[in-house]
Parts: sequence; structure tokens; C-alpha cells
Amino acid sequence: MAAVDPTPALTLPAGFYVDPDQFRVEVEHFFMRKWVCVGRVDDLPARGDFVTRDVGVENLIVVRAEDESIRAFFNVCRHRGTRLCADPSGNTGGSIRCPYHAWTYDLSGRLVGAPHMDAVPGFRQEDWPLARVVVSEWDGHVFINLSGDPAPLSAQLGDLPDRFRSWGMADLRSSERIAYDVAANWKLIIQNYSECLHCPVIHPALNRLSHFLSGENEPAAPGHLGGAMRLRDGIASMTADGTSRRPPLPGLGPEQRRTVQYYAVLPNLLLSLHPDYMMTHLVWPRAVDRTEVVCRWHFHPDALGQPGFDPSDAVSFWDLTNRQDWHVSELSQLGIASRAYRPGPYSARESMLHDFDALILRELGQARPPG
Amino acid sequence: MAAVDPTPALTLPAGFYVDPDQFRVEVEHFFMRKWVCVGRVDDLPARGDFVTRDVGVENLIVVRAEDESIRAFFNVCRHRGTRLCADPSGNTGGSIRCPYHAWTYDLSGRLVGAPHMDAVPGFRQEDWPLARVVVSEWDGHVFINLSGDPAPLSAQLGDLPDRFRSWGMADLRSSERIAYDVAANWKLIIQNYSECLHCPVIHPALNRLSHFLSGENEPAAPGHLGGAMRLRDGIASMTADGTSRRPPLPGLGPEQRRTVQYYAVLPNLLLSLHPDYMMTHLVWPRAVDRTEVVCRWHFHPDALGQPGFDPSDAVSFWDLTNRQDWHVSELSQLGIASRAYRPGPYSARESMLHDFDALILRELGQARPPG
Amino acid sequence: MAAVDPTPALTLPAGFYVDPDQFRVEVEHFFMRKWVCVGRVDDLPARGDFVTRDVGVENLIVVRAEDESIRAFFNVCRHRGTRLCADPSGNTGGSIRCPYHAWTYDLSGRLVGAPHMDAVPGFRQEDWPLARVVVSEWDGHVFINLSGDPAPLSAQLGDLPDRFRSWGMADLRSSERIAYDVAANWKLIIQNYSECLHCPVIHPALNRLSHFLSGENEPAAPGHLGGAMRLRDGIASMTADGTSRRPPLPGLGPEQRRTVQYYAVLPNLLLSLHPDYMMTHLVWPRAVDRTEVVCRWHFHPDALGQPGFDPSDAVSFWDLTNRQDWHVSELSQLGIASRAYRPGPYSARESMLHDFDALILRELGQARPPG
Repeated sequence: MAAVDPTPALTLPAGFYVDPDQFRVEVEHFFMRKWVCVGRVDDLPARGDFVTRDVGVENLIVVRAEDESIRAFFNVCRHRGTRLCADPSGNTGGSIRCPYHAWTYDLSGRLVGAPHMDAVPGFRQEDWPLARVVVSEWDGHVFINLSGDPAPLSAQLGDLPDRFRSWGMADLRSSERIAYDVAANWKLIIQNYSECLHCPVIHPALNRLSHFLSGENEPAAPGHLGGAMRLRDGIASMTADGTSRRPPLPGLGPEQRRTVQYYAVLPNLLLSLHPDYMMTHLVWPRAVDRTEVVCRWHFHPDALGQPGFDPSDAVSFWDLTNRQDWHVSELSQLGIASRAYRPGPYSARESMLHDFDALILRELGQARPPG
Repeated sequence: MAAVDPTPALTLPAGFYVDPDQFRVEVEHFFMRKWVCVGRVDDLPARGDFVTRDVGVENLIVVRAEDESIRAFFNVCRHRGTRLCADPSGNTGGSIRCPYHAWTYDLSGRLVGAPHMDAVPGFRQEDWPLARVVVSEWDGHVFINLSGDPAPLSAQLGDLPDRFRSWGMADLRSSERIAYDVAANWKLIIQNYSECLHCPVIHPALNRLSHFLSGENEPAAPGHLGGAMRLRDGIASMTADGTSRRPPLPGLGPEQRRTVQYYAVLPNLLLSLHPDYMMTHLVWPRAVDRTEVVCRWHFHPDALGQPGFDPSDAVSFWDLTNRQDWHVSELSQLGIASRAYRPGPYSARESMLHDFDALILRELGQARPPG
Repeated sequence: MAAVDPTPALTLPAGFYVDPDQFRVEVEHFFMRKWVCVGRVDDLPARGDFVTRDVGVENLIVVRAEDESIRAFFNVCRHRGTRLCADPSGNTGGSIRCPYHAWTYDLSGRLVGAPHMDAVPGFRQEDWPLARVVVSEWDGHVFINLSGDPAPLSAQLGDLPDRFRSWGMADLRSSERIAYDVAANWKLIIQNYSECLHCPVIHPALNRLSHFLSGENEPAAPGHLGGAMRLRDGIASMTADGTSRRPPLPGLGPEQRRTVQYYAVLPNLLLSLHPDYMMTHLVWPRAVDRTEVVCRWHFHPDALGQPGFDPSDAVSFWDLTNRQDWHVSELSQLGIASRAYRPGPYSARESMLHDFDALILRELGQARPPG
């Protein structure tokens, strides 16, 4: 009996990155059915505070209701379909009022005012509430689910809440924010995040802080992929010069203060936990070849409250690194669109990408991929 | 026998506003077959004067011919298809000459010059005239019809010529013009024009001049929808401060001087007759979610001839109002594209919109609407 | 038996110019299967010099290899598909290195470095070379062929190498370059180039140098269309004032010094041989209604080496002429898109266009054209 040659694990076929139909399938599956991170609890400190978010082709209002809970609704008036809130954030006051004909909803979505509708035979206010979206929270992160009747968020997160309890994420407060428009498929962003084989090539500054082979991946879970990398000796955090202007987060043990945790919380939250701060990327697919990425930096309130608090050491380091990553991701998008592209071989340093690809295929039930 | 609950009249399904195929059907039906307003007789004061107009995906030349009549042609040379006139307006001289190879047509569309074609066997100049488009006029408004063999314009206009004779529209002259590019379906523009329920909410200045409940709609006709609104006591016209710098139009009686007539002359002329001026909007669908709107203000020659004539009181008032209307129309377009959109209930103050929707359905023979 | 009326030869139906599916068929047939000109040998003077070129939807690297030969490759890394060279030109050094994970190829396309791949079972470097593209040269012009197994370039060129030997094109060196983005189908560019009936109308300056009826077309060949036009008495070349700042090219006889040769070398090289310089246009279809045209001027090294060498007399003349041509080509594109467009009659001065149309139909096997 002849020996079978082993074959390397291969990247996905081109269709996953260039086919608009495939893109729609993925958005539908991962963004319209899964729990999707839309931001942080501290985005909505007071009653009536809202943010709007584009999730797939839908626009949502996420609002702090009268009872202090966070609610989410499709941003669509039930009268003539008008988008209710055009601003990215703000305060609604005690109710949401349509700018067109003043239909008014309370913060739980009930229609409470509809001028000149009382005389309409058969019209009952209670029949026309806002279309509600399920909301859940994890340690300060806000998630929504558009599927109607989802499994609980905890099922999607798996062991993450236990794993990251020490970081006390719920206590952290957002400081800086940079949004990027990247001409690459959303999965290329996640794949780029999930390996550091490219680090010595395109991130020499990063590689000086944390050796690219120092990473240890955890086994992939259905809802997340990730692992830790070690800081080099003498390096306090991922910053422009490797020092930190902040004390470590209070809950961390000595070992945790020597690592950075990098986790892709699928489908759209890249969670990077440093000894002294949290960085998040929200990944928003906009087209098969375009992704909006919103990067934010979050700090402990004690650090934020210090006179002269200055997060620029962390922000400038990662802004540079982000731009390097988006550039090569865009080059990948360009090359994969070629008829000369064939699935190529992954190295052992890219096993998490192979896990991610397998998860995509399994989730979509696509034994035969497109392309 | 059980009583049937009454149900409110509902807005159209989303497909009417977001489906590109539906858009093509509507352009074909309403703009390629109906009489479409392309401007005013006074756009073409002299022989050879022309304007070009984009009607649907077609570009037309409308020109004052040698016999003083107004003619219209597809803007396409019969030689190699070149667009003949690239300018939006101008004077052709006594003939229309192709800029590519100098094929030349007289102002009735006959080919009168074709260099180096005389030697071509079988070529006869009389076989290659410009493709002509039927033109008709109503009180200074110019209409074209692309259907080939249309019913007369008067059949489409119904009782409008009688109704508006007193305003003497043929005598008025165009003064100001503002073009708007609106990210909304063309029907949302017409619907917005056809109710004032939104006026107290988004046009507080307008509502101070003319109470939003002062309107009386006429029964809808196959070719137009409209009615009159009353000016409040002490208000002379729709202007920034409610006064007018012009006398009323000479033909109007005392009652007509107290109203503004608002008529949507389908498919594309919004005709707003004030005591002292005429405003017109031409509505040009460009895509399922984009409409060009050209607003113009027309005055009596006696007013225009006054030293220091200044129409800014009328123009600035309506420019502000227009922008408010386009903004909410764009918000409607955004909301209707959501999967959460469902047809919503009309109030009694929006009966004209229900009439318009019914007309759209009836004209298209679409018992089952898209979406 | 009745005589049959002769009928003029007619232009192509609209679909050839406005149908995106037809466009894809043409790009596939003419640009993915034929020899396509990508530039000049002197673009790559030294080993490692490269240019990148977009051919259809593909991006290629054309590089001077270690053995001095010119090679071409799809610009796609075999690892994860990254575009290798993002710059339009430069020098690779001795190898082509991927910017993402440093996979490295020698200039013959062999994979010579793949970090962390050695431990992957079944991985062999020799299995992952760059995808190579066939290259051939004609008198300094560089051609590529994407079909895999093409007939030799000479078969496509026919008698051109003999015909133009006297011009010594291989000796010429590129000087100036202007790129144009033209809103017209690529065939309209070729057709415009292939007749001078339009010259007295839109190029009065050109017509003063070379009478538009002075041209003599050669019989069309499968791979090229063209002919010569005579310079008027006293005119030395096609320049702003009809004089030349350069001596004639050394190999030309007295008769050749009185002509300009205009040949469309299909599918994409427009070759214009003047007594004292060569002009080339490369025609790059980008969409059914958009074409990039790169015009370059090439001179004899003796002229280029003169102190104060100034090619502006040739460049400014043709830049003006080019812009006039693109403008009418864009007007043709606009007119042909109309439903009023019908195939129109060619004159005897446009016989080369009829030959070109026939070639298009024959090559595509489209007896029944689209549209």
C-alpha cells in the first residue's frame, strides 16, 4: 500500500474574498444572526443617550432607556419608514421623535404620539412599536443580535468571561478612537490579526517590543480565536518606546502583566488586552472588498483621571501598526482577485488562520467553496 | 355576520423605493410614455436657441426652429451616433452640425449636409433625419413625449388649463434657478410635496405663513394631484417675512390672492402658484435612490422690469424649505431600505399620497407590488 | 429579375459599445488571448528594473531578469495571494520579495525563500513559483500573452516588422508620457484613430500639416490596420508649427521622410511613425465605457543627447489633438447609448473602420451582434 504524501493546509479560494454573493451570505450568517459587538456601556452614560450603528445594511439605534437598561431598535419610523436618528450619537431626551411627522416613541420603543392618526379607523397606537433588537452585555461590551430569537450571548463567548475577568474590562473607559476605511474583505482583517508571522517584515517596531515567535495560541473555539504574546524583558506595554505612562490594571497578576492577549471575538470584535489598557477593533464589512475598522483605546478611570493624562504612547504605536496591516491587507485583496491566485500553503505559524477558515466553511455549510 | 375591522391605508412596499428593476419600469412607464415637462417657452426666445435635457437615460435637444415652433430631437447624430450638442443651452445658428464629421441638420431635423457621403452607393440624405420627439405647450410650459404616437397633452392635463388660466402663466418669465441632487426615490419627492402634515415639524417658517391644516385637496385626477392652501391673515405671499416686493399677478381675483396652489402635474412638474409669482420644480429620476430636482422662480415681466428687481425674498424662503424637504426625503429613503420597514398607516392628512400610490399601482397594472 | 439597391456599410449595433457582457467577451478575447503591447525595452534598462501593468483585470510584473531577458509574471504571491509590487515601476534588486511575509522569488520566478515553511509536511519550494507570462519583443516593443500557449508574436504582426524596419524603432528611447482617462469604449478610440475624415472638423491645426485626404490605407490584416498620410509641402513633421527641431531618423529614405505612418497594431498599440520621432498610444480598456490611453513620444538617442533637447513641439501638438479626439469619442459613447441610436452609414473615407468592425465580428464569431 502506497504512502500518501502529506499536503499543506491551504488558504481559501478566491470567491470568499471577491464574490459579492458570497459576501452577502457571510454578512447574513455572521452579522445578521450572531451576536455582534456594537460598542461599550460607557458610550451611553445617561438616560436617553444613544449611538447609531450600521450592522450589515441595517442601521440601529442603541439607547439607554428610562430603566437604565440598554435597548436597541431598527432606526425606522413605523409611519413612513423615515430614519429616526441621523446622528452617530447624542441624547434623545425622554423619547424618540421622528423628524418628519413627529411620531414619537418612548425609550422602550412604544409609540406614544402619532399626530392626526386618532381619527383613522382601525388605527391603534399599540400596533406600531419600533422594531426591537435584542441586546446583551459582557463586562462593559455591548452586543446586539438581529436573528430574532438567539441563543444567549454567553453561549457564543464560551470561556472568555472567565478568562478575562482579571482585566476588569467593565471598569475601563474609552478615550481615543480612530476609524479606518480599508479596501479589503473583512476576513483578511481578521486573518491579519490572527498571526504575527508578518510582524518582523512589516512591524519592526512591534517586533522590538514583543517577539513574533513568543505567541501561544489557544485552541480555537466556535466563537473566538486567540492567544497571548509575551512582552520582551524590560518592555512594560505596547507603546511607542515600550514604557508605559500608566500603572498596570489593578486586577492583574505578575504573569498577566508580561503578556498581551489578542483575541478575535467573532464575528467583529478584536480584543487586545494590554497590561495597562484595552484596545478594541470593531470590524464592519461594507462590501466584499471594503471594511470599516473602528479602533478604540480604553483605560482605567484612575489613569484617565490623572492630571495630564496622555494616551498618545499607546495610540500612536497602534495607529502606525494598524496602517501597516491595512496596507498589506489591501495588497492581498488586489492579488487574490487575479485569475492567477490559487490557494496557497499556510505555515505552522498561521494555524489560527486555518482554524478560522475551517470555522467559516463549517458555519456556512460550504463543503464546496465558491470561486 | 361578523363585522370587519377597518384597516388604515398603508404606504407602498419597500420595493417601490429600493428595487432598481422597479425603477426602470417606472421610468419607462412615466417618463418614456407620458408627456414630460422640459421647461418653459421663454427658455428659447430666438430661432436656433436650444436646451438639452436628460429624460430618463435619454438626452434630447429642444430647439426653436426657423418657423418659430419648438422642436425636439434625440441628441444623436445619424452618422456614428455622436451626441450633437454637449452644452446645456445655447444657439445652434441656423442648423445643427455634428462636432465629429460635420453632418448637418436643419432645425426641422432634416439632414442637409454629409461630407463625402455622396459617393456612397445607396446613400440618400432623406433617409437619415434626426429622430424627432413630439412637443406640445401649455401656457408657457413645454412638454415632450417619447412614446411615438401619444394622446394629446390636453388629455393628460385634464382641467388644469381652465383652472389656472387666471394666473396668466404664459406671460411669466423665468428668473432664478437652483438645482438639487437628492438621495431619494422620485416618488418620495412627489409624496413630500403632496402633504403638509410635516410642515409644523420641519417647516416652522412656512407654517407661520400658511397654516398646515388650511389646505383643501381637489379630487385626484389621472394626470395631477393638488389643492390650495390659504395664506394667514396679513401674509401677502410665501416669502422670508410674509410680505411681497411685487404686486399680485394681474389676472387674479381677491380670493385667488389669498391662496397658494400646489399641484403635482405628473410625472415631473410640481407647480406652485403664488399670488405674485410661479415656482416650478422639475423632478428628474436618476436612479432608484437619486433624483435631480430643478427649482425655478418665474415672475411677471412688469415686476422683472422694475429697477432693483430682487426675487430673493421668494427664493431664499423656498430654498430653505426645499432643503428641509430633501433632507427628510433622504431619511425616508434610508429607512425604507431596512428589512424592518413595513408599509405604515397614512393619516387623513395624507390622503393625496394614498391617491398617488393608487395611481402608480393602477398605471403599472401592479396589483402585487414588488418588495 | 429586379436590381437590388446597394446599401451603405453600417456602424456596429449599440451593444458593442454599451453592454458590459460584450465588454467582458472582448477583453477576454483580445486582451487575455492576443499578444498585448506593455511598453518598451528601454523601460527596463538594468537588471531588476520592473514595471507593473494592468491588462484587463490582471496586474502583471514585467522585469529585466539576471540573464538580461525580460520576464513577466502575475503580480501575486503564491503564499496568500498578496500583490508583490505595488509601485508602477522601480527596481526589485536581485529578487522579488513579498511585503507581507517575505516569500522571495528570483527574477525567473522561482521561490527561493519562504520563512517558517520548511517544517510544513509536504511543502516543497519548487512547487510554488510565480505564475509566468510569455514575453516577446519586436523592435523595442515588449508584448505579453496571457493565453498560456500562444502562436508566436510574428504571426500576429504579419508584415509589420519588414514594413517598419527603416525607422529603426529598437534604437529609439522614450522621453515624454501623458496618460488619459477617456469615458468611451476602447473600440471608439481605435476607430477614431483609423480615419481622418474628422480632421478638418476637429483638428484644423493637424489638417494644416497633413491634408486629411492625403491618406492611403493599406489592406487590413488580421493583426493591424493602417496606412500613411503625406506631409504638406514645406512641413517637416507633425509639430505645433510644422517644423522639426530634430533631424530625420537615420534609416529613412526621401519618400519616408514625407509621410507619417499610422497603424493600429491590434489590440492595443497605436503606432505613429513620424520622420523624426515615434509616438505610441497604449489603449487599456477599463470598462465598457472607459478606456485609459497612455501616449508616449520616443526619439533617436542622438537627438535626445543634444544639449537643450526639447520635445515639446511634438508633445504639445499631439496632446491637443489627443484631447480633441477623446472629446468626440466621449460624445460618441454618450450618443450610442441612446435608444435612438441606429447603425449609421460609413463613407468611403471610413473604410478602415468597416474593416475593423468586420474583424471584431469575425474574431468573436458573432454573426448576430449584441444590442
